Amino acid sequence: MPPPPTATDPPAAVVLVSGGLDSAVALATARAAGAACHALTFDYGQRHRVELEAARKVSEQLGATRHVLLSIDLRAFGGSALTSDTIDVPKQRAPSGAETEIPVTYVPARNLVFLSLATALAETIGASDIYIGVNAVDYSGYPDCRPAFIEAFARCADLATKAGAEGGRLRIRTPLMEMSKAEIIRAGADLGVDFSLTHSCYDPDERGRACGGCDSCVIRRAGFEASGVEDPTIYAA
Amino acid sequence: MPPPPTATDPPAAVVLVSGGLDSAVALATARAAGAACHALTFDYGQRHRVELEAARKVSEQLGATRHVLLSIDLRAFGGSALTSDTIDVPKQRAPSGAETEIPVTYVPARNLVFLSLATALAETIGASDIYIGVNAVDYSGYPDCRPAFIEAFARCADLATKAGAEGGRLRIRTPLMEMSKAEIIRAGADLGVDFSLTHSCYDPDERGRACGGCDSCVIRRAGFEASGVEDPTIYAA
Repeated sequence: MPPPPTATDPPAAVVLVSGGLDSAVALATARAAGAACHALTFDYGQRHRVELEAARKVSEQLGATRHVLLSIDLRAFGGSALTSDTIDVPKQRAPSGAETEIPVTYVPARNLVFLSLATALAETIGASDIYIGVNAVDYSGYPDCRPAFIEAFARCADLATKAGAEGGRLRIRTPLMEMSKAEIIRAGADLGVDFSLTHSCYDPDERGRACGGCDSCVIRRAGFEASGVEDPTIYAA
Repeated sequence: MPPPPTATDPPAAVVLVSGGLDSAVALATARAAGAACHALTFDYGQRHRVELEAARKVSEQLGATRHVLLSIDLRAFGGSALTSDTIDVPKQRAPSGAETEIPVTYVPARNLVFLSLATALAETIGASDIYIGVNAVDYSGYPDCRPAFIEAFARCADLATKAGAEGGRLRIRTPLMEMSKAEIIRAGADLGVDFSLTHSCYDPDERGRACGGCDSCVIRRAGFEASGVEDPTIYAA
């Protein structure tokens, strides 16, 4: 459970908001902790513009102070299904298998890049907290979702920044790290997240509807079922 | 001195190339070590487009395999003279003072952001080496030019990436770290760097000529004088 709001002036925080379910709950947690939240979303050439629109709506619904959209066209690098037009997204892989393999939907060094830019924004606005909705339980095999990476990043960011050089500390907040998908959904429901605004699917149809079959849809569906919270998602299949 | 070229297939390396003097020598060092170099330059909203053109020319002169220009508009964040249209660049600060203060020309978390994106490119192309021309001697007070930061970053990048998760290692090469500016210039001259293509000035005039008075010009001029290498730079003053 997040700490209750404080009576002091709200501290500023940067929150990475993707438009997905997890980052929406991370933002809601930061808001419940009393932070003035600068939501940061990356347009990195992903296939689905619907994600960016979801990020904007989620940020607004949860009372972010502002929503910053930063473009970095990682397609110039190539190498991932999530940002390529030519590699198909795999279907129907069971969540149980996701814990041991690194999937082809992997974007190179994504959380490293995103946290680095979040650190730049945090330094610019004087924020000492960055929230990121990474999760070590249903983490789909991405290496940069593990606690060891987050801890190494925090040390690196301290050494990289003016605040760190002057003895300040940047805290990387990972409120969802040890939660199951069902626990994340229940926490979000308690904090008032409107899940109908969030988008998880790697492969939506032309109307933006979730496919129901990709890794991300499978994990989302199973999470809602286990949570007892009603799933507002409209699945195409 | 860099190791001599090997007879094996050239390994791929990512080299951060800014258009300045130091990164040109870093690129020349990587080439002399036998690497197939992917030069990476960031357009991060800096004032001077002449830097980007210098980066392209330097990459071509030194035989880079390709030159990748990646745009990230950090002006959305604000907070630095180098990327702001409203803050003046300070003149005539002595290099001796530069070692203890963090200058207003600081770009938030710049090397953290740049190395993170270099890591993403390295992972994409299967490179295990990243070259960056940071320097702890004439480093102008930037916290992210210190060896402790570079070491922390390398550990973080290993934890962030698929190669690292599978036991690979990413090496962050900092061939200039312990060199004086004069030593860097002499090394570059030995390696065939055409310094007339490089650009250091923070505040060039409308024709792209170096101002001669900003920190960067003062350090460059003094370096050439100490090196005994002729300075091809045309200074406006």
